[in-house]
Amino acid sequence: MEGKIPHWLDKRFELSPDQTAIQLKNGKIYTFRQLRADAIAFAGKMKTLGIQRGDHVGILSRNSYEMVVAIHALSYVEAIGVLLNTRLTVREWSFQLKDSDTSYLLYDHHFKKEIAALKEHVNIKAYSVNDVKSVRKTSIPLPDEMDLGQTFTIIYTSGTTGFPKGVQLTYGNHWWSAVSSALNLGIHEHDRWLLALPLFHVGGLSILIRSLAYGMPVHLYEKFDAEAINREIIENGVSIVSVVSVMLEDMIRHLGDQTYPETFRCMLLGGGPAPFPLLNACKQRNIPVVQTYGMTETASQVSTLNQMDAIRKLGSAGKPLFPARLKIISGNREANPNEIGEVYVKGPMVTRGYYKREKANQEAFEHGWLKTGDLGYLDDEGYLYVVDRRKDLIISGGENVYPAEIESVLKEIRGVRDAGVTGKKDNKWGEVPAAFIVKDPDSFITKEEIVHYCEQKLAKYKVPKEVFFVTELPRNASKKLMRRKLAETLRQILTRGEHE
Amino acid sequence: MEGKIPHWLDKRFELSPDQTAIQLKNGKIYTFRQLRADAIAFAGKMKTLGIQRGDHVGILSRNSYEMVVAIHALSYVEAIGVLLNTRLTVREWSFQLKDSDTSYLLYDHHFKKEIAALKEHVNIKAYSVNDVKSVRKTSIPLPDEMDLGQTFTIIYTSGTTGFPKGVQLTYGNHWWSAVSSALNLGIHEHDRWLLALPLFHVGGLSILIRSLAYGMPVHLYEKFDAEAINREIIENGVSIVSVVSVMLEDMIRHLGDQTYPETFRCMLLGGGPAPFPLLNACKQRNIPVVQTYGMTETASQVSTLNQMDAIRKLGSAGKPLFPARLKIISGNREANPNEIGEVYVKGPMVTRGYYKREKANQEAFEHGWLKTGDLGYLDDEGYLYVVDRRKDLIISGGENVYPAEIESVLKEIRGVRDAGVTGKKDNKWGEVPAAFIVKDPDSFITKEEIVHYCEQKLAKYKVPKEVFFVTELPRNASKKLMRRKLAETLRQILTRGEHE
Repeated sequence: MEGKIPHWLDKRFELSPDQTAIQLKNGKIYTFRQLRADAIAFAGKMKTLGIQRGDHVGILSRNSYEMVVAIHALSYVEAIGVLLNTRLTVREWSFQLKDSDTSYLLYDHHFKKEIAALKEHVNIKAYSVNDVKSVRKTSIPLPDEMDLGQTFTIIYTSGTTGFPKGVQLTYGNHWWSAVSSALNLGIHEHDRWLLALPLFHVGGLSILIRSLAYGMPVHLYEKFDAEAINREIIENGVSIVSVVSVMLEDMIRHLGDQTYPETFRCMLLGGGPAPFPLLNACKQRNIPVVQTYGMTETASQVSTLNQMDAIRKLGSAGKPLFPARLKIISGNREANPNEIGEVYVKGPMVTRGYYKREKANQEAFEHGWLKTGDLGYLDDEGYLYVVDRRKDLIISGGENVYPAEIESVLKEIRGVRDAGVTGKKDNKWGEVPAAFIVKDPDSFITKEEIVHYCEQKLAKYKVPKEVFFVTELPRNASKKLMRRKLAETLRQILTRGEHE
Repeated sequence: MEGKIPHWLDKRFELSPDQTAIQLKNGKIYTFRQLRADAIAFAGKMKTLGIQRGDHVGILSRNSYEMVVAIHALSYVEAIGVLLNTRLTVREWSFQLKDSDTSYLLYDHHFKKEIAALKEHVNIKAYSVNDVKSVRKTSIPLPDEMDLGQTFTIIYTSGTTGFPKGVQLTYGNHWWSAVSSALNLGIHEHDRWLLALPLFHVGGLSILIRSLAYGMPVHLYEKFDAEAINREIIENGVSIVSVVSVMLEDMIRHLGDQTYPETFRCMLLGGGPAPFPLLNACKQRNIPVVQTYGMTETASQVSTLNQMDAIRKLGSAGKPLFPARLKIISGNREANPNEIGEVYVKGPMVTRGYYKREKANQEAFEHGWLKTGDLGYLDDEGYLYVVDRRKDLIISGGENVYPAEIESVLKEIRGVRDAGVTGKKDNKWGEVPAAFIVKDPDSFITKEEIVHYCEQKLAKYKVPKEVFFVTELPRNASKKLMRRKLAETLRQILTRGEHE
């Protein structure tokens, strides 16, 4: 979607300079005036360091006001942000930085050690946020307008294939996402949106853009804290919180017999299908859960349940947002109501493609529709139910874990002949990865050694929590691993209590 | 602004089919399901009559559900609606129909006689709404998507030059207008917007589009009725009403000592600068007036006061809506704060031009900015104050005199119900202000008393040099004062030597 609008932070500053933009957990407040001034100053310093319009700039940071400033500064320099997941390993970061042609990296001091290691793998100019702050600033010409067709961020996701690809999102994708959410959830004058999801994920990032579009304070958390967040809702007027299931469970646990006040109007629940017991617990406590379905490729929400239907359509992710379209394809035709198929989406919030992945893009798009790889159905009234994420995808505490990626690491290990990974139900995280290993006949490798190897190569949440040695893996005629059979085997093992 | 979104009425039907779309004064309700079915059926009948994609179709109708259906039917046929002002003469309609290359005309039966006369002047296929209803329908392929770059309506306005020109508004202009309004006024779940402005004006029409985008009921009135509208606010949950000053004055008169309930959140006041006594009266009664500035060329609002500033910035039309830009130009440079100049606007809701008016378009646009011809200034905080329409400006002895300012003072006077000011040729000063006054029925106020009051409130050159008592002022269909008619009346009076 092409076109131009005023620069979004400039415009928000023009409209409500003294409104709160960011409020931290400790109560510290930054107005839009402050945020804009800081972002422009930071942009000027980025310029001094050599960062130019169109440059790809990695950001590796925990949630912080400084990270918000850096993200907005990118829009003044018109550079493209490559947002890195802080939980990944050096090896994973290297891949993403190289793959995305990123030449600069901004990091928070917490990652100092990792950056040193990273620099051995990838040729990059890395600056801590404090480094940047300490340089003098170059004055930069402020862009009058924002080109909605221009790329703003690249965020890596493994998508349907399990292999990390950089999702390009334009200013327009982010803008339309913010508008779409508003048309569904409404905009109330006193809204305050609590952000405890990582800003490097689109679910967190998108809240920042909504803040600009609506003139709405964001309560920014470095990390999730159920007790503190409950308090923000009860005492500080937070009206919307974005969560994934594991967070919501935690909040309910901590809530005890307290209740949320009427000012709290939306618990936006994303990150995969929600367990029914959780939804029911919320229903009983009158917690206004609004389930949503979205992904990096759709700049966050693409289908969200309307609040009016929250109870009647428990478990549904609602209907596609106003500017979006959604259909279910089953065997090359549109599925009937209640028939499961692959979810296809289209609309101005949908990415135009993965960075430099011609082939993946050809496979992922069909006549402008994105094939999400997720499975779901529409009921008789057109409400979406997502039944499974991308067939094999494991969702662990809201993070996507792709079996193929873990298998690839497992197969590197000397003594491992074959490997298959599937998700194991987990009370805390929803799911955790479990690995099935076929050893070389003469190998004496242990489970501990396998886990240890993975720990060095993979983000912690990707490391298998269970390892099973088997004599062979279920493969079909074309030798493709049948992960669904693996899952079945796992269920049987667990039922029989066979392991340990 | 190019791009595609789902057809807006189809989409709204998909999202909330059983929500009220239109509620009439008599209480009759039409859901989005009904509205869509009726619009599609009507489109099929238009097709039978020969109306094709791209045809220009005139609509001459008082506000009615049928008119709403016809307007939405245009979007299914992908024909372009030329919305005619019902208060014009046959001669004026002929001009607009010919000028816009309109080949079909739909009218409500009320205009049967005028249509007969019209057909003598212009070669057009004219059908009453009942004619259309009685033909069989042709099935039409429903468009999947709406092309935001395509023209939806042409509405005539005299603009800055006083000569009628057809303003082309695309689906995108209307869409962005609806979104922009939402980002400023918010969207509440229980909003109900009362529409008593004519649908042939953009101020009325735009409410229909907002209804689709937000899923919001519209209370549709054939014509303004202060008493009934007050009742709708007090008893029927109407939360927003679009008005012009004279309507609002009438509503307050009828309100007596009743008050509006808390559910009522916005009295959207457009149609030119508002008199201060009116704004003050609203302030005293806690009526949430939100002043707005807009025109046909901007698909309604382009700058609107935020509710939070309603009191603090009384008299201002606020700041340009999120996707809009606005500047004040005085003598080829951007004006300083508080300096009056011409208002320029830019944004995705702004028309791309007048229909077939190359020269007027060249004059009206400058680097993508529309020169509105209106005069105003931005205060130190960037709030817009529109002081007058440029064409009404009175220049007296080199001093600029703005009729609206004088009218505002005149209306403060006890016994003055309505007031209009225009320029009178004067040998010494070039022009001097002349006032037309509608007295309260029981008032004995004299011309001398009026002049005396003004002398205390206004610089000498602004004090009306002539005062005429009249029974009513010339106002157009949306109750906006037509100062050009005042000027004409003045000329006639002076020629006939009628006064004194």
